[in-house]
Amino acid sequence: MGVSLKDVASRAGVSIKTVSNVVNNYPHVTPQMRAKVQQAIDELGYRPNLTARHLRKGRTGIIALAVPEFGNPYFAELAGAVVDAAARHDYTVLVDHTAGLREKELLVSQGFRAHVIDGLILSPIHLETEDLTARTDSAPLVLLGEREYEAPYDHIAIDNVAAAREAVRHLIGLGHRRIAFLGSRTGRERQPAHLRLRGWREEHAAAGLEADDALVVVTDGYGREDGASAMAALLDRGERPDAVFAYNDLIAVGAMRTLTERGLTVPGDVAVVGFDDIEEGRYGATTLTTISPDKEAIARLAVDSLVERLAGGTAPEPRRQRPGYRLVVRESTARPPRPR
Amino acid sequence: MGVSLKDVASRAGVSIKTVSNVVNNYPHVTPQMRAKVQQAIDELGYRPNLTARHLRKGRTGIIALAVPEFGNPYFAELAGAVVDAAARHDYTVLVDHTAGLREKELLVSQGFRAHVIDGLILSPIHLETEDLTARTDSAPLVLLGEREYEAPYDHIAIDNVAAAREAVRHLIGLGHRRIAFLGSRTGRERQPAHLRLRGWREEHAAAGLEADDALVVVTDGYGREDGASAMAALLDRGERPDAVFAYNDLIAVGAMRTLTERGLTVPGDVAVVGFDDIEEGRYGATTLTTISPDKEAIARLAVDSLVERLAGGTAPEPRRQRPGYRLVVRESTARPPRPR
Repeated sequence: MGVSLKDVASRAGVSIKTVSNVVNNYPHVTPQMRAKVQQAIDELGYRPNLTARHLRKGRTGIIALAVPEFGNPYFAELAGAVVDAAARHDYTVLVDHTAGLREKELLVSQGFRAHVIDGLILSPIHLETEDLTARTDSAPLVLLGEREYEAPYDHIAIDNVAAAREAVRHLIGLGHRRIAFLGSRTGRERQPAHLRLRGWREEHAAAGLEADDALVVVTDGYGREDGASAMAALLDRGERPDAVFAYNDLIAVGAMRTLTERGLTVPGDVAVVGFDDIEEGRYGATTLTTISPDKEAIARLAVDSLVERLAGGTAPEPRRQRPGYRLVVRESTARPPRPR
Repeated sequence: MGVSLKDVASRAGVSIKTVSNVVNNYPHVTPQMRAKVQQAIDELGYRPNLTARHLRKGRTGIIALAVPEFGNPYFAELAGAVVDAAARHDYTVLVDHTAGLREKELLVSQGFRAHVIDGLILSPIHLETEDLTARTDSAPLVLLGEREYEAPYDHIAIDNVAAAREAVRHLIGLGHRRIAFLGSRTGRERQPAHLRLRGWREEHAAAGLEADDALVVVTDGYGREDGASAMAALLDRGERPDAVFAYNDLIAVGAMRTLTERGLTVPGDVAVVGFDDIEEGRYGATTLTTISPDKEAIARLAVDSLVERLAGGTAPEPRRQRPGYRLVVRESTARPPRPR
């Protein structure tokens, strides 16, 4: 550290507590006191908490990552990647969660903590384009995830339609014909499940097969429980698919649990493909075939975009960037045991 | 909102940008300008971003929760509970992670972001009592988790020894005799694994059985991979336990995957008990018996303790609080198929 709070206090002729109050930007410090302490800080080159580089620019060195939920391992894994990417630029990441609530997404995007963070990486679910165009907060914002917006912000997302098509192509290639889609949402045109559902539909068409809407199940959310109940609903109404393409790995995990409870085997009776490549899918009794988005690339692109905008200068036009993904084939998919 | 930035700007006779700079506590505002803007803010009753209640007290309304890793669902679930508990006191939670690094734990505990947060809830792995007694930051700190400290801070943790004993008692009661412990750590007397290992040992003694140290496996970390390799190591050295008590659910999940790969069934060949009750354990092909700490109570006690100390007045002596836990029996444990 070199220079301490105590050094600053004695140079300024005030108590250590007062210096601390100034450094912490507590509002009850008088402007006179603040000026006196600031002068001592400048003279001694005292470096409070965060890096001088950030502070000189009036920054905190903190960026926020706002995700819909902590409970979804995809976001936990992504958060880890963002922390790593941000560390390379000397930024610290604090993670916030919106609970998938539009109200919370609005608050966060509109600068709820503008005094605390330099920039925001937000993965929205319910925000509308209007919400974003109405944004007044000046802190740079980068969007993540599958929702599409016509708003002037950088947006990082894999090509969800193409990725979904690749998953379905894998199943069709194995010989499956009755392929269910679990995890659709209703009434939200631009929702991610819509893009993945569109991929499911398009790939059927490309293969000259008819996509059967009776095999599409709407879910309330994106969790294990939603997958379990979606699979149960499908079986209860007498639909028995050859294969399942789940909106994400959690829904796939839930669906596999229901299949087990109903005495059906994976992949013998029903093949299952997920989306996200969370670690959990690599450790189940039957490992999960899945679409693996390049989380490191997503995190790196998001942080780099934010840092570029924080650096000022002539900011580039908002960009849409598409990191890669790949299909990872594991135990949950195989050819049907007999011709169907 | 009522009063806007613009209203404040015209009352103070400055630009909106200047008001914004003051509200955001940017350091390059002159004390004179700050005073002028503050006066307009006070006269108009402008309420920037956070609640006036917090701001009047010189607070941000933000508490930090620092966990060892985002990737462990136990901490993700706990974070969700802390967010809920904090919301009841009008506090926002930002989550930080220490990556289980002592250096990062030190930084966080010593007030790395004192200017941003009002208080800290920290779940340490490597901090020593000396680190905590040397702490100079004045922001209230509450400790979570299994490490025991003789330091003047509130500490919330379940009784790990008693909980581990209950898990082992369950296995002994079913008729298991060769009970492995996966997830011990070396060289750290007060590490949590030590407490759970102590429980394993004490319960054997209480039942008049000899605890076999050849069935204890040290792991590098607390993840699925650690559990998988620990189980493999045990089997590779010719030890075939009746049952496994894992340090946590992730280690249990990893161990079950190895058992599956080796052609052994759970619970038929080997019964498995975990610790944490993460949701993942409820959805596997074989659901996991586990110790379920009361995460809501942990979160509530932690937030309440912090809020009480933030309220000032005569703070009580640092307290050690022990929330409850319970054994949840699921499919991964059963009586041995035949007498052994």
